[in-house]
Amino acid sequence: MILVNGQPEDSINVLDRGLQYGDGLFETIAFRDGKAEFLQSHLSRLYRGCERLKIATQQLETQLNAEIKQICDDLTDNAVIKIIVTRGQGGRGYRTQADNIPTRIISTHEITNYPKENSQGIKVRFCQQTLSENASLAGIKHLNRLEQVLARAEWSDDDIAEGLMFNNQQQLIEGTMSNVFIVKDGKLLTPELNLSGVAGIMRQQVISCAQNAGIDVIETVLTQQDVKNAEEVFITNSLINIWPITEIENFSIYAHGEITQILQNTIYNLEK
Amino acid sequence: MILVNGQPEDSINVLDRGLQYGDGLFETIAFRDGKAEFLQSHLSRLYRGCERLKIATQQLETQLNAEIKQICDDLTDNAVIKIIVTRGQGGRGYRTQADNIPTRIISTHEITNYPKENSQGIKVRFCQQTLSENASLAGIKHLNRLEQVLARAEWSDDDIAEGLMFNNQQQLIEGTMSNVFIVKDGKLLTPELNLSGVAGIMRQQVISCAQNAGIDVIETVLTQQDVKNAEEVFITNSLINIWPITEIENFSIYAHGEITQILQNTIYNLEK
Repeated sequence: MILVNGQPEDSINVLDRGLQYGDGLFETIAFRDGKAEFLQSHLSRLYRGCERLKIATQQLETQLNAEIKQICDDLTDNAVIKIIVTRGQGGRGYRTQADNIPTRIISTHEITNYPKENSQGIKVRFCQQTLSENASLAGIKHLNRLEQVLARAEWSDDDIAEGLMFNNQQQLIEGTMSNVFIVKDGKLLTPELNLSGVAGIMRQQVISCAQNAGIDVIETVLTQQDVKNAEEVFITNSLINIWPITEIENFSIYAHGEITQILQNTIYNLEK
Repeated sequence: MILVNGQPEDSINVLDRGLQYGDGLFETIAFRDGKAEFLQSHLSRLYRGCERLKIATQQLETQLNAEIKQICDDLTDNAVIKIIVTRGQGGRGYRTQADNIPTRIISTHEITNYPKENSQGIKVRFCQQTLSENASLAGIKHLNRLEQVLARAEWSDDDIAEGLMFNNQQQLIEGTMSNVFIVKDGKLLTPELNLSGVAGIMRQQVISCAQNAGIDVIETVLTQQDVKNAEEVFITNSLINIWPITEIENFSIYAHGEITQILQNTIYNLEK
C-alpha cells in the first residue's frame, strides 16, 4: 500500500523537489507484531531533519500521524514502513518558497528476508567509496544517497552482508545501511557523526541500553587500526537490530562476543 | 510539455530511485531561436555522468535523441529544456541491479526572466553553506543537490543574483547554479572541480573561447583572497551565459571588465 498526501496513489509529480534535488528526508521503520517499532523516535528524527532543511512541519505531524495509523491498521503481517517527506513542488531552481507544501509518501514493503544466521555473525568489507563531510547534512536521513548507492555497487557477493564506509581522512563512519560499533577494553566505541553519517534510531537504542547496563559508550574518531584491534564489532539498524561482524574481508576475524550478545538480548527484549 | 519514458505524462512512480536516493542526473538546456543550445555537449556530460554512476546507456541515447527532437519540434518559443535520467525502479535498498531500466524525463519550462541588466553586472554574496568533497561525484550533474538548496535558502533579497560557495577548506568552488571565473594579471582563473562542483557546459565553452582568443586559462585552487584581489569576476551557466560580478556583499566591488566583455561577445556570437 502507498499513500501520497493521504491518498492511495503510487506516483508523484515529476516537478517534486524530492526528485529534482533530493530535497527531502526518509525513515525506514520495522512493523512487527502489530507495531511500528520506535515510531516516535523515527518521527522525531524526521522532524529534526525537516527543521535542519527548513521544511515546514506545522500540519505535517497531524497528517502523518493519521496516515501512519491508517497504514498500520491495514497491515496484517510484519512489514517495512517507509516514510518520505519532500519539500514538495515549486520554487524557481534551487530557491525554496515559504509556502512550499511538503509531499508525504508512506509505503509498505515486504519485510526483508535476511538470513537468520546473520544474528550470529556476518562478513563485511571495507568500501572504497568515501563519505563526504558536511555538518549541515550530517546525522539526518536525507534523500541525497548517491554515496551509499555507489558503495553498495562495489560488491555483488551475497556472502558479504554489508560494507563499512570511511570519510576522506580514512576515519570509520558507518555501514552503507547501518551504524557500526566496536568493543575495546570492555568499552563500546562508535564513530562521531557530526560531519558525516546517519544517526540511526537503533544506534541510539544501543547506546542507551549499553549505558543502562553500565557499559561505557564513547563517540569518537575510529580508524581502520581501531577496527582491527577491536575485541568485538557489530552493526545496527532498525530492521536488523544488531548483527555481529565476525569477518572483515582480507582484514580480521572476530568472535561473536559477550557484550554484543548482551546488547542483542537487551534490544530483543526491549519494549519497542 | 513533459515526456516520461517517451509518453506525455507528469508523474513518476514513487519507487523510482531518482526520488528514493537522488540516484540520477540532470541537464538544463537553453532552447533559443529554434535550437537546443550546446545539445551535444549536454548529452555528453549526461552520458559521462551515467558512466560514473554505472547507469546503462545502451538504449538511452537513441530514445533521448528521438524524445528531445519531439520536444524541440513542439516548442514555438524560447524555453528551458530539462532532462532527468534516473536509474529507474528496483533493487533492494541501495543495491542496484544489472537490469535496472533508466527513467527518462524531459520537461520544458518558460525561459527564466532574469533582469537584462544582469549582463552588465550583478551583486552576489558568499554562502555559509559549504560544498563537500567527493571525487566520485565531482564534475557530474547528479540529483543530490541539497547543498545547493540550503545555500540558495540563505538569502531572499532579489538584488542578490547568486551566492558563491566554498569547500570546507574555504576554497572557492562555484555558484549555487553557476561556475565562477576570475581575471588576474590578464589571465583567466577558475576553480579545479576534481573534488566538488559541476563542470558546466558554459564553463567549458568559456575556457575554449578564452584559449582561442589567446587568453591563458588556469584551473587551480582559489581562495577568498584571490577573489578579493581579482581584476574581474564573472559567473557562467547555460541559461545566463556570462554575468559579470560587480559587487560582492560586504566584500568587493569590480568593474565590468574588458576580458569579461570580450568573452561575453564571443559567447554571444558563437554557433550554439
